[in-house]
Order: sequence, then C-alpha cells, then structure tokens
Amino acid sequence: MEPIRWKGDRLELLDQRVLPEKTVYVTCRNAAEVAQAIRDMVVRGAPAIGCAAAFGVALSKGSQDSFEILAKSRPTAVNLFWALERMKKAKDLEAEARAIFEADIAANREIGRLGAELIAERARIMTHCNAGALATAGYGTALGVIRSSKNKNISVIANETRPYLQGARLTAWELVQEGIPCTLITDSMAGHLMSKGEVDVVVVGADRIAANGDVANKIGTYALAVLAKRHDIPFYVAAPLSTFDPKIPDGSHIPIEERPAGEVTGYRGTRWAPEGVAVRNPAFDVTPADLITGIICEKGVVLAPNREKLEALIR
Amino acid sequence: MEPIRWKGDRLELLDQRVLPEKTVYVTCRNAAEVAQAIRDMVVRGAPAIGCAAAFGVALSKGSQDSFEILAKSRPTAVNLFWALERMKKAKDLEAEARAIFEADIAANREIGRLGAELIAERARIMTHCNAGALATAGYGTALGVIRSSKNKNISVIANETRPYLQGARLTAWELVQEGIPCTLITDSMAGHLMSKGEVDVVVVGADRIAANGDVANKIGTYALAVLAKRHDIPFYVAAPLSTFDPKIPDGSHIPIEERPAGEVTGYRGTRWAPEGVAVRNPAFDVTPADLITGIICEKGVVLAPNREKLEALIR
Repeated sequence: MEPIRWKGDRLELLDQRVLPEKTVYVTCRNAAEVAQAIRDMVVRGAPAIGCAAAFGVALSKGSQDSFEILAKSRPTAVNLFWALERMKKAKDLEAEARAIFEADIAANREIGRLGAELIAERARIMTHCNAGALATAGYGTALGVIRSSKNKNISVIANETRPYLQGARLTAWELVQEGIPCTLITDSMAGHLMSKGEVDVVVVGADRIAANGDVANKIGTYALAVLAKRHDIPFYVAAPLSTFDPKIPDGSHIPIEERPAGEVTGYRGTRWAPEGVAVRNPAFDVTPADLITGIICEKGVVLAPNREKLEALIR
Repeated sequence: MEPIRWKGDRLELLDQRVLPEKTVYVTCRNAAEVAQAIRDMVVRGAPAIGCAAAFGVALSKGSQDSFEILAKSRPTAVNLFWALERMKKAKDLEAEARAIFEADIAANREIGRLGAELIAERARIMTHCNAGALATAGYGTALGVIRSSKNKNISVIANETRPYLQGARLTAWELVQEGIPCTLITDSMAGHLMSKGEVDVVVVGADRIAANGDVANKIGTYALAVLAKRHDIPFYVAAPLSTFDPKIPDGSHIPIEERPAGEVTGYRGTRWAPEGVAVRNPAFDVTPADLITGIICEKGVVLAPNREKLEALIR
C-alpha cells in the first residue's frame, strides 16, 4: 500500500476519497496542487499530510508561495507545520522531503515495535478513524501497533468514524488486506461493547499533542477516552514526534477545523437530512492527558503523560 | 404528522424508511403485515410499535397467530408486549386499540407539559434518535418535551443516530417543520460540544425501563449519558408508563436486538465498507439508572430514579 509516491518531477497521491471501491492516484506537479489535495482529503492523516507538504515544497522549489498555500490547507494536524519548518531550513529540498518520508516509515515501525509490547495475547483492540499506512508514509501509527501485534491472535474493532468514514472505508480495508480479523461498528456502539466487556484496549492516532499531553485527534476520540476510563480500559495514543507541539501549552489552544456541512447531511451524492437544518462539523476533538494511559512514540512509551515527562522525552 | 392511521378495515403506516424524501403510506390488512412493517422499520419507536401491534391484533380479530407473530417482530421495546397483553384481555379489540392509541397521545402531551417545566429559557437541548411524533401515536416523548418548550426560545442539537439515521432523517425533519432551530451533528461530536459548554440538557426517549430505573434506548444513548455525567449536564429520559417493565429487575435482563450487517456497512443502496469485514449491529444499549437525572412520564417526574421510587410511581 503506497499512499504517497514520489516520482522526481511529480507526487502521486492515492485518492483516499474513493477507497476502497477504486484505486486511483491523483498527480500533483506543484505546491498548489498538493495543497488542494490535502484540503480535499485526497491525502489525509497527520503524518501523511506532513510528508505530502514536504514534497509539495520541493515541487515548487521552495518558493514563498508554496509555504503559504500549504500552511493554509488544513489547520489542526501539526505535522504539516513541522514539515514546512524543516523544509524552510533545508538546503536540498528533494533530499529533505525524502528524508521526512523515510523517517516517518522508520518511526512508525518503531512505534509498532514498542506498542506491541503493550498488547496482550488475543487482545480485542478498538481503534477510531484511520491511523494506518494510509495516514502516514506507510505502516501506520495505531495500525502500526496493530500490525506489529499480528502474531498475538489479536482482533480489531473499527469504529466507522462518521462523517468521513475513515474507519469503515480505510481501516477496515487495510485490516482485511492484512488478514487481521476486523469487526466494524458505528461510533455510537463503542460504549455498549465496552460495557459488555468486549474491548481490552483502545489504540488511536493523533493530529497534535500539546506540551501537557492533551491530544487532538479525529472527532469522537474524546468520547472513547471518557468511556474507556469508566470501564478501566487502557487508552493509548500512537504518534511520531512530528505530531508533538511543545509550543502549545494545552489542548484548548489547538485550532479545531470545521469542515463543510455536506459531509454531515449525507454521504457523497446521497443527502438524507432535510433542507433547513443547521450543521456543525468539527473534524477533531481534544482528549485531556489525564484520560490517556500512554503515548507511544518512536522514542518510547510515556505512561500517564504530563508536561514534565513530555519535556524530558523531547529534550 | 400522522405516523399511524386507522381506517377501520386497514392500518396505514407512514413509511419511515424513506423519510424525509418521500411521504408514502404502507397499508396493512392483517397482523402478519403489521409484524412485517415493524420488523422492516416502516414504523419504529417504542410507543408507535405498541400502537401498531394493537391495531394488528384488531385486524386479525385476536387470533392466536396474530399475537405470536407480532410478539416476534422486535424484541427490545416493551410497549409491544404491553400492548399485546392489553389486547389479550380486551373484549372489543378495535375499541381497545383505539384507546391505546388515544392514551399514548394524551400521555405524550402530559409528558411534554411536565418535561417543559425542567427546560430553561434558551436551553440548548441535545437529543438522540427520534422520540418524536413519528415514534409514538403523535406528539412525541423527548420531542414532546421539546415541542412543549417551544415558547422558551430553545434550540436543539440532533445526533444523526447511525446506523439508521433517525436523528438526521426524522428528528431534524420534525423540528424543521415545527420551526424549532435544529443543528445536526454526527454521534461522535456530542462529547466535543458538551466539553465546549454548548449543551445545557439532554432529553431522550426509551424502549424499556427496568424496575430499578435502568433504561434501554437507541444505541449511543449510554455514551451520551456517560458524557453528560462528566460535564454535569442534566440527562432526562421521557417515556410513557407503557415503556416501564417492572418484571425486569435491571437493565442486564433487557434483550438487545442485533440488526442486519447491511445497516452498518453502508446506507440504503450504497456500500462503503470492504468485503470481508465482520459487523456488529446492536440496536440498543442500556443506561444505568445512576446516570439519569430524571425520568419524565405522564404521572410525574422521577428524579434520581431507583427501584423504590418507580414502585411507588407505578403502584
């Protein structure tokens, strides 16, 4: 599975809007086209949009415009801004973008290795949204932990993740291909399954981690963390260091993107809500650090994350 | 809005599967056709299926078959079994079915009147699924409370209620027609809005209330109650006495219907999940009594419900 293919003079992005029905690549030849692909969710997932943005800068030869247009594409995932900062300082733009890409895969594999140590034999793992190969340069963060636990006879409960259905379309697809047993539920069923003792552990990705350990991730993550706490179910966040934002003191400062109403009133061409209804569509929410059992990154696992522990980790 | 129309020799049911796009009635001429309509969700909502079942018995002149086939149509909402018990004892079947129907509307109006006393000026009320006119003989339980609060400049946040989208299709439609401001969200957004202080009170319906006050209601209700508790948001359940099941000691004894996988893997003709994925589709969950601020029924409001208070109410 190659969500991002660098071809020297162009970037090919696997169009995640039409998966799993169709496997189509969108070709981007400059930063503006990459920014458009990020905005339209051709490519999504915090690490993946960081990698795509880096290649976008390289395609436009580091012009000031390229940085500006990419910085405006989506607001919540910090990996985008982290990648742009690295590209600003780089001498060889293509080499730097490739280095960001390769380092993301390496980080994911290390996250998978470290995270798998936390997963028990036959664990029933709940995940939300898609923090898989498709959300990264490859392999995945939360799904990296799951992939690396494959030999433990695990199974996965995938929340469908309305409105964009990344769980139903992307996570379920990755897991079916990987041969890992996967059960799909609607987001509203997570609490019921937890109350019935059918969930052993929750593992999710992240879009931005504040200095105190608060985590912005796909909308619905916060509710899962509250429910997991009530049922004493460990709740892990898997994310590379590029997702950490030490400049932001806590989650209340993380900008939360509001996306178009049409994603909520229906799906693709089908509208089911009546005309005249208002819509809210926040794409992310914030899970406070005190609900998080541990953050798994390539430098280690931070249990009961807080400001001091994250400072020590990043230092 | 007339979800159930009795025509003497037939029952006409507003087809809730195709709302709000189409207003079509399905005609039932015997108990088997009514049972099929209940199973297929032409008519849904605990009080509404109780009323429909009563008319079904009347159409089949109280044959033993009619009771058996209707009792098997859906397992969770107790109003169905309550209505069948009443019909078993009745002498004039048509008169009894009409009495059940009329009493449900009267109960809803009284629930609305009593519930409105709990709603503050300009309250932002969250509701889940559809406990409206469509779920009852008319007027609604949770939406009855909301209708009766209309003069208080309230607004409503409607959870879309996957997988069947009763919130997006039915609740939003009722509220738009009623002229009550309504904002549609996905189920996964409820916790985020609560954490931002955008929800003042939650009001939902019920499918079965156990002797100790545990409430079975549409899947996702339990998560809302847990989130409301965390944010000190009052959580009310509005339901007529026909929803109370004093024979069941607590929620763990309530049968939870599992519905077809196709409701989760897509919507109507559209499938978005990959082949090969397993599915769970529990249609209801149980909210323990200690998460419920009050139960609103036609005989009064039971705050902090428990076995003693509910016994005293029903006695």
